[in-house]
Amino acid sequence: MEKIIGLIDAPFTPFDAHGEVNLEPIEAYARLLERNGLKGVFINGSSGEGYLLTDDERRALAERWVSVVRPGFKVIVHVGSTCVKASRQLAEHAAAIGAWGIGAMAPPFPKVNRVAELVDYCAEIAAGAPGLPFYFYHIPAFNGAYLSMVDFLKAVDGRIPNFAGIKYTYESLYEYNQCRLYGGGKFDMLHGQDETILPSLAMGGAQGGIGGTTNYNGRCLTGILDAWAAGDLEKARELQNFAQDVINVICHYRGNIVAGKRIMKLIGLDLGKNRTPFQNMTDEEEARMKAELDAIGFFDRCNK
Amino acid sequence: MEKIIGLIDAPFTPFDAHGEVNLEPIEAYARLLERNGLKGVFINGSSGEGYLLTDDERRALAERWVSVVRPGFKVIVHVGSTCVKASRQLAEHAAAIGAWGIGAMAPPFPKVNRVAELVDYCAEIAAGAPGLPFYFYHIPAFNGAYLSMVDFLKAVDGRIPNFAGIKYTYESLYEYNQCRLYGGGKFDMLHGQDETILPSLAMGGAQGGIGGTTNYNGRCLTGILDAWAAGDLEKARELQNFAQDVINVICHYRGNIVAGKRIMKLIGLDLGKNRTPFQNMTDEEEARMKAELDAIGFFDRCNK
Amino acid sequence: MEKIIGLIDAPFTPFDAHGEVNLEPIEAYARLLERNGLKGVFINGSSGEGYLLTDDERRALAERWVSVVRPGFKVIVHVGSTCVKASRQLAEHAAAIGAWGIGAMAPPFPKVNRVAELVDYCAEIAAGAPGLPFYFYHIPAFNGAYLSMVDFLKAVDGRIPNFAGIKYTYESLYEYNQCRLYGGGKFDMLHGQDETILPSLAMGGAQGGIGGTTNYNGRCLTGILDAWAAGDLEKARELQNFAQDVINVICHYRGNIVAGKRIMKLIGLDLGKNRTPFQNMTDEEEARMKAELDAIGFFDRCNK
Amino acid sequence: MEKIIGLIDAPFTPFDAHGEVNLEPIEAYARLLERNGLKGVFINGSSGEGYLLTDDERRALAERWVSVVRPGFKVIVHVGSTCVKASRQLAEHAAAIGAWGIGAMAPPFPKVNRVAELVDYCAEIAAGAPGLPFYFYHIPAFNGAYLSMVDFLKAVDGRIPNFAGIKYTYESLYEYNQCRLYGGGKFDMLHGQDETILPSLAMGGAQGGIGGTTNYNGRCLTGILDAWAAGDLEKARELQNFAQDVINVICHYRGNIVAGKRIMKLIGLDLGKNRTPFQNMTDEEEARMKAELDAIGFFDRCNK
Repeated sequence: MEKIIGLIDAPFTPFDAHGEVNLEPIEAYARLLERNGLKGVFINGSSGEGYLLTDDERRALAERWVSVVRPGFKVIVHVGSTCVKASRQLAEHAAAIGAWGIGAMAPPFPKVNRVAELVDYCAEIAAGAPGLPFYFYHIPAFNGAYLSMVDFLKAVDGRIPNFAGIKYTYESLYEYNQCRLYGGGKFDMLHGQDETILPSLAMGGAQGGIGGTTNYNGRCLTGILDAWAAGDLEKARELQNFAQDVINVICHYRGNIVAGKRIMKLIGLDLGKNRTPFQNMTDEEEARMKAELDAIGFFDRCNK
Repeated sequence: MEKIIGLIDAPFTPFDAHGEVNLEPIEAYARLLERNGLKGVFINGSSGEGYLLTDDERRALAERWVSVVRPGFKVIVHVGSTCVKASRQLAEHAAAIGAWGIGAMAPPFPKVNRVAELVDYCAEIAAGAPGLPFYFYHIPAFNGAYLSMVDFLKAVDGRIPNFAGIKYTYESLYEYNQCRLYGGGKFDMLHGQDETILPSLAMGGAQGGIGGTTNYNGRCLTGILDAWAAGDLEKARELQNFAQDVINVICHYRGNIVAGKRIMKLIGLDLGKNRTPFQNMTDEEEARMKAELDAIGFFDRCNK
Repeated sequence: MEKIIGLIDAPFTPFDAHGEVNLEPIEAYARLLERNGLKGVFINGSSGEGYLLTDDERRALAERWVSVVRPGFKVIVHVGSTCVKASRQLAEHAAAIGAWGIGAMAPPFPKVNRVAELVDYCAEIAAGAPGLPFYFYHIPAFNGAYLSMVDFLKAVDGRIPNFAGIKYTYESLYEYNQCRLYGGGKFDMLHGQDETILPSLAMGGAQGGIGGTTNYNGRCLTGILDAWAAGDLEKARELQNFAQDVINVICHYRGNIVAGKRIMKLIGLDLGKNRTPFQNMTDEEEARMKAELDAIGFFDRCNK
Repeated sequence: MEKIIGLIDAPFTPFDAHGEVNLEPIEAYARLLERNGLKGVFINGSSGEGYLLTDDERRALAERWVSVVRPGFKVIVHVGSTCVKASRQLAEHAAAIGAWGIGAMAPPFPKVNRVAELVDYCAEIAAGAPGLPFYFYHIPAFNGAYLSMVDFLKAVDGRIPNFAGIKYTYESLYEYNQCRLYGGGKFDMLHGQDETILPSLAMGGAQGGIGGTTNYNGRCLTGILDAWAAGDLEKARELQNFAQDVINVICHYRGNIVAGKRIMKLIGLDLGKNRTPFQNMTDEEEARMKAELDAIGFFDRCNK
């Protein structure tokens, strides 16, 4: 199965002033990401507030993204939900509209406590799009699914024909490396934490990844891979440190989904607010965040 | 606002052999519950696998339940989901079809960490059915929303006009009592753990509750309230101990959603299996559970 | 084995102005507790900052308590520590000086994850004082030992000859009741949460208990047992609600170890401050707490 | 303040057949570690079962280690305990006997929830040995002290004169890097997870570290630093992967404290068993572990 090389972006979902999905900015959004070196999008995931959308909204977003991207720019549709029946239908839809791949995180309800539960869940969804690669999105801090990914790979291996790999959003580079080495490296381990791309590269991983801060800091993050490939360790470190500087700022304002989405407005692509229960930033918070970003030279570097 | 006296049941959702929602058994189900002394149903909640259903399925279930119950038997529709927009639509639907009330648990994703988030979430949903009482369903073990319910009551008081109270499914009888006493007892604190009805009654609570094992052990559980009211402490204790005996058994087989639903089959009302990712009981497990239930005399006492 | 009837107090450890153990107030302390209806003390436990004392200090405290109490007033010495060898020596010492019993909580380090670990730990300590009853002190919120106490009772039954029972400081009255019923009620289940004595009594438990707020609110708490025994449910409820009112206040100031110890000063028995890392109350906090206690009429009722 | 370059080992504590501390093997132990490239020892920590020792035992171990090491081989004494008074005395003792430095982890009881608590705790201990560098040992998985280390550094900076840095045993290389960069790199951030030395080096960290598997796999682990320094990335990766292979094995047998200590026996330096509540390996488990280690060629490579 093809392995992804380079960084995929997890886009935010644009909402209009009434809180309804707004498809209009997506074309410009795609151009922005392409310009900054991203290789595709992983839509309707956590950054995209996928769990806070109706199934119809998720389908409409998928259709628009597929229709606006340039050839070769991958659209992976996150189809996970607490209702496996709905997720399978979303998988079928993704296949029907020509998406490149699909993915699903573990359902947060009921909390998944056993590998067997997670395998059944993924198998049922992946079967909805048998011709597309299926990625499991491991983000246990969000759904409590603190399961061994090595055990998971052993369990899916041979059971889910179109299983491609894992978007690994967790701190254990030890487990990440063990997954990467599993079965002679047969699965695609997409690195999923923008703050540690460089250390992962050193260990042999992170050739491909999915980013969240790539929405507004894509050149910096793709630059880490480029610098590493060019053997320029100092530049890679400087870029990784800058990526962490930016992440430090958004951590002051409830993280990427809230603060990162607001940064898009500050760089000229207003995507609206977040859905309830997210607590949107106040104007005062936005001003403070802007000042913090200015102080690290963000707006000069992001090159939107 | 009216307070519920007596026990409401949280029914399971019947599925057919293909795993599709099966409305057929619901009428007999309602008769069974009425016969055993239940005062209503809280549908599409955790026992009902509400989060594992599509919105259309949830609506169809609500319509059927409303259509088959006898006058005075309350139908409360759980409308919570990770998508507040869909939940509000479900609330509107519940009002339109003549449900008695609505409820919602905290969304498991994104995990609710602040009282303000929870209040916004409930307010947005409750506004969809302003004429119906809205109950918050507190079950933090399932969704991680370990928030102070006293702080929550303070925050919703005056903010959500149709806020009725809390289905309290958590072990802290201290907090439960503090909520019960809040504002002179203005809110309806529905007790939500079948294993501790008697101790709660002693403290002054549990006049009303919502049960999960009431599906198959309703006479025992409603009997606790009757015995207490009649001043028969010994009988109340015997019944509460028996209720715990039954709960001990289902805890051996992955709890009420899995094991309890299977007991319905054993008492003659087959409701089918659970949806993925629940791990259904094997035939061997079912046989062992039946033997355990036999050993405590369950089938002689449940009086289905 | 004898079962404890009535409430045992978990005393604070007096420190002088230099932070050294101060034995002087202990005689008056014993008189205060006897006067308020307590039946004994459980010393060097969590309220007593036992883990923050040297072994020599723990021995000195045990000796003094044993020497000052009146006949029949039980002294139970908590001997638990992270070093099982030291704990066993403390158990031997407790036996040598004539203590009534001993106890130990699960060590917080290494975190106990298996029942077998806990049983080995308790067995090794209990063997140091084979003639004294040994109580396991279950307080998982403090040490992370979230193990099934029913499984634990099964495992110690027949293995530890002088095992007497459990001081149960956890919210699950379901588990508490199952432990109480285990083996025909052979073990002594001491209730360990002052906020829920009444509900536990209703279920058949709490004939004996160990309190932390009994240090300054003993008459109220022993009054709950008296009122229940006299069949006066309304009085029992009023007292339990008042006990919760007091607990509400200390929860505003970092709980019983910090705030409760400071209340002792306010009622005339200054026991000094807490050891590091506890954050002692400021004078301003003390003034606010005093006002809150005044507002609920505490100082008129506590009858020190 | 001097920064540590290279790897320090966290030795196990030798026990004799009666479970008493055995000082005899320590001299040979020091020779083994020196031979394998280690730069010092961090004694009486988690690998050393420091919390399971009496204070007298801890002092005896410190004295022996100091007396047997060759000049320049650092002895850092972990003096942390739940009793800050005892810890301070251990710090004074370490200074008196000529140890190179001291360290302490957060106490597991009471659980440390606020940075201020941790700072007070460290300050009180560090003041016992003002002439020695003090290291905070961050290992939240063991003591629940999940505090921001950046906030901690800000709080100790200027408050604890002899504060040297952190032994960082946690998965977040993001936080590790932020600590490393804090204040222009003024503090010594010792890497504390043997499974991720290489990725940390890439980011600019891990020039110094403290290992647990260095007891028996020291040549491999020090080899990672050497290979990196020599610019041989492929060799560094091979060594890091092998280090993970070894860690995979010990994870099958309750981790380093239990399984790692048993490996010492297999390579010829029998250190005895673990103290209660650790569950020692059975002979059958030992045989299986030996076979697993054989299968990865461990005994040919470890070059004891």
